[in-house]
Amino acid sequence: MKRIVIIGANSAGMSAAIAARKLDTKAQIILISDEKYLPYSRCGLPYVISEEIPNFEDLILFPPSYYEMMKFDLRTEVTVESVNPIEKTLHLETETGKKETIEYDKLLLATGASQIIPSIKDADKPGVFKLHGINDGEEIKKVMQKAKTAIVIGAGYIGLEIAHALNRKKIRTTLIEQNSQILSKMLDTDMADIILKRLEKRNVNVITGKTVEKILGENQATGVTASKKEYKADLIILATGVKPRVELAMKAGIKLGSTGGIKVNPRMETAIRDIYAAGDCVESSNMITGQPTLSQLGTTAERQGKVAGINLAGSYSTFIGILDSTVSTLFDLEVGSTGFTESYAQQIGFKTISGIIRSKTRAEYYPGGKRITVKIVAEPDMDRIIGGQIIGGEEVTQRLNLISIAIQNRICVSTLSKADTCYAPSVCSPWEPVVLAAELATKKIASARLNL
Amino acid sequence: MKRIVIIGANSAGMSAAIAARKLDTKAQIILISDEKYLPYSRCGLPYVISEEIPNFEDLILFPPSYYEMMKFDLRTEVTVESVNPIEKTLHLETETGKKETIEYDKLLLATGASQIIPSIKDADKPGVFKLHGINDGEEIKKVMQKAKTAIVIGAGYIGLEIAHALNRKKIRTTLIEQNSQILSKMLDTDMADIILKRLEKRNVNVITGKTVEKILGENQATGVTASKKEYKADLIILATGVKPRVELAMKAGIKLGSTGGIKVNPRMETAIRDIYAAGDCVESSNMITGQPTLSQLGTTAERQGKVAGINLAGSYSTFIGILDSTVSTLFDLEVGSTGFTESYAQQIGFKTISGIIRSKTRAEYYPGGKRITVKIVAEPDMDRIIGGQIIGGEEVTQRLNLISIAIQNRICVSTLSKADTCYAPSVCSPWEPVVLAAELATKKIASARLNL
Repeated sequence: MKRIVIIGANSAGMSAAIAARKLDTKAQIILISDEKYLPYSRCGLPYVISEEIPNFEDLILFPPSYYEMMKFDLRTEVTVESVNPIEKTLHLETETGKKETIEYDKLLLATGASQIIPSIKDADKPGVFKLHGINDGEEIKKVMQKAKTAIVIGAGYIGLEIAHALNRKKIRTTLIEQNSQILSKMLDTDMADIILKRLEKRNVNVITGKTVEKILGENQATGVTASKKEYKADLIILATGVKPRVELAMKAGIKLGSTGGIKVNPRMETAIRDIYAAGDCVESSNMITGQPTLSQLGTTAERQGKVAGINLAGSYSTFIGILDSTVSTLFDLEVGSTGFTESYAQQIGFKTISGIIRSKTRAEYYPGGKRITVKIVAEPDMDRIIGGQIIGGEEVTQRLNLISIAIQNRICVSTLSKADTCYAPSVCSPWEPVVLAAELATKKIASARLNL
Repeated sequence: MKRIVIIGANSAGMSAAIAARKLDTKAQIILISDEKYLPYSRCGLPYVISEEIPNFEDLILFPPSYYEMMKFDLRTEVTVESVNPIEKTLHLETETGKKETIEYDKLLLATGASQIIPSIKDADKPGVFKLHGINDGEEIKKVMQKAKTAIVIGAGYIGLEIAHALNRKKIRTTLIEQNSQILSKMLDTDMADIILKRLEKRNVNVITGKTVEKILGENQATGVTASKKEYKADLIILATGVKPRVELAMKAGIKLGSTGGIKVNPRMETAIRDIYAAGDCVESSNMITGQPTLSQLGTTAERQGKVAGINLAGSYSTFIGILDSTVSTLFDLEVGSTGFTESYAQQIGFKTISGIIRSKTRAEYYPGGKRITVKIVAEPDMDRIIGGQIIGGEEVTQRLNLISIAIQNRICVSTLSKADTCYAPSVCSPWEPVVLAAELATKKIASARLNL
């Protein structure tokens, strides 16, 4: 009987296990997790903090009976100490210190990512939190009951989702970002400004372009200094991004890529035979440039896990790369992006043209319509779409998916500008703003081309 | 000075006028309408009946000042009696009987469509209504104040939107459709059944497969007979579809297509030089087959009008055809389609494969998520998508647009199954149902191909 061992039981690991089981009903599938909880949705953590979701337990994906039904041997609170790719064995240690060696036929590293702890003095002081797992969330929720003020360090999605949650719970929040703008990975400044204005309206204090140097306080964090200015708070949360967890892979001699993620082929197989990797710990390739990149999104992990699972089971599937399509809901706005921002695209050498359309989500005369701003980023030489950013009161996600499909399939911006779209006054405008943004970009490309 | 004359001031006509004005600020643009109202959104009529929109006046697109600003010479309640393409003149008659002949340099026929009056005995009896213009809507609203029961003949979108409106106003409604299912143009039976169940739940009486033979009543309609059975009602509304209004074109010797719509080239020019046509009165070509078809949707009219307007102004634009992407909101469901249904595709000779996914619009654990069913229709020989149908509580429209873009750009169903999509628990599932439907269709195609 084939034994498939999966290290890590989150998005990638679970997705792989499910895909493998569908193809091979007999294989022994062992899932190893170093957490004490049953697999859960990490993306849901901020919504429990905000109390939009009542309990952390609500994030748990499946009841114990599911694992029985699927014949998954799920082992929680077990650490993998090392992998021996020659003997095809793993050395494990349980929470109680019991050691064990098990064999594998096929192995998947779905070890995920760990929080980047920035070079802030005393960043490990009590009272400084991160939000990576349920245990972190539980600690934060406890402190929030008494906290009146908070500082969130880092203004990416997670930082903003945390700020949103704290704000909802009436905790006066300061967001400190070393970059010159918030959400710099996903949005250009013009779009980020829409979110910034909303944050200001909701009384979130946003400080950009300042680096936190030090955590203040004797035994307990009481604030930070940023660019030498002091900021006090009852609660400090680091939202400074994540990095691939690759210690185990490195110890086993598995090759990493230039990004620091595990290098895999299109089947998600590492340089060592029968060892696969998927999710936050691997290096992906960008669909526009083909260049290596770290994606580290739940969707990417799920998609890669599925591909890995199919291959683990002995069938064939390939992963085609990523566009980093993301979305979030922040302060009653849906905000998301796909592909490159103008600023990043220019940084890596593209000339960019953008089309921005401000519209509404329903016909002008239909009640309840919300504002929506669509930005399409194109590059004039090949008339192609390389990015999209959308912020609106509703109906943002699927518009981003549409742009993502357009990028992935190298649809020209001029072609998108001719699209046949749906219309009903209750759910959209007669002229779809994505189409109008493409039309605007098309026109701008025409004049840009004259000067190429 | 160039004189552009546009006959018909609805979606196509207005869209053309605006596009022409953007390119030519000096041209004289005359818009001729036989209605007494300023141009308005016809698609909004059912929502006024349902009182989701308060007044018919709310549907009026622009205030009188707009026409001044745009230098549009809008002439309402004027009928065009004939067009002389040799002299390039039009013969007009105003509401008061005043006759006038005017010259044109470029002419656009945007004469729209008229209600199909089926061969029902006494279909013109007082008490039988249609919903084609504001005047119809006003009459219906008046009768609705006293009516307790209603019959709607025809279960296409308009028929269902009217039934939705009557139901909202607590009028006991019977829907009679001669086809064996409701919404047969847009949905396959499996999808239409979702709507049917909702209609039954809301106490709308649906009768399919029966043809209305006769309107009952002495001087005033009191009911109908369908397949010889009598049905009584205080109000009877015909929603039996529309046909191109082409009388003027025919009198002028302009060629029609096999569908009965005016034949145009890709620039929306008719067989007679300097006479263009756009909107419900023209024949379009289907983007999948290239075959002539009647589209008769607001979006098609707007897109064609824009193309015509650009060409009327002397610039260059082409219309690429239609997929009949449509959406509506019916009984708290968003329902729509794009491309072909399986049943229609088979009728015109395709073999079809479908993937149906039932999912939710948010993560399982996130409150407020609604059910959504996605059906993708593919054809196995070329692995391509030829249709999509979606019904859900929210977020349907943009998913249809995504499928429309995929069809338009001949994206393989297997490619769509690998798409990079967005995810946040508050706005979608980690696995996008459109992608899963494509994946399912891909798998079914593999086995179908073995037997091709």
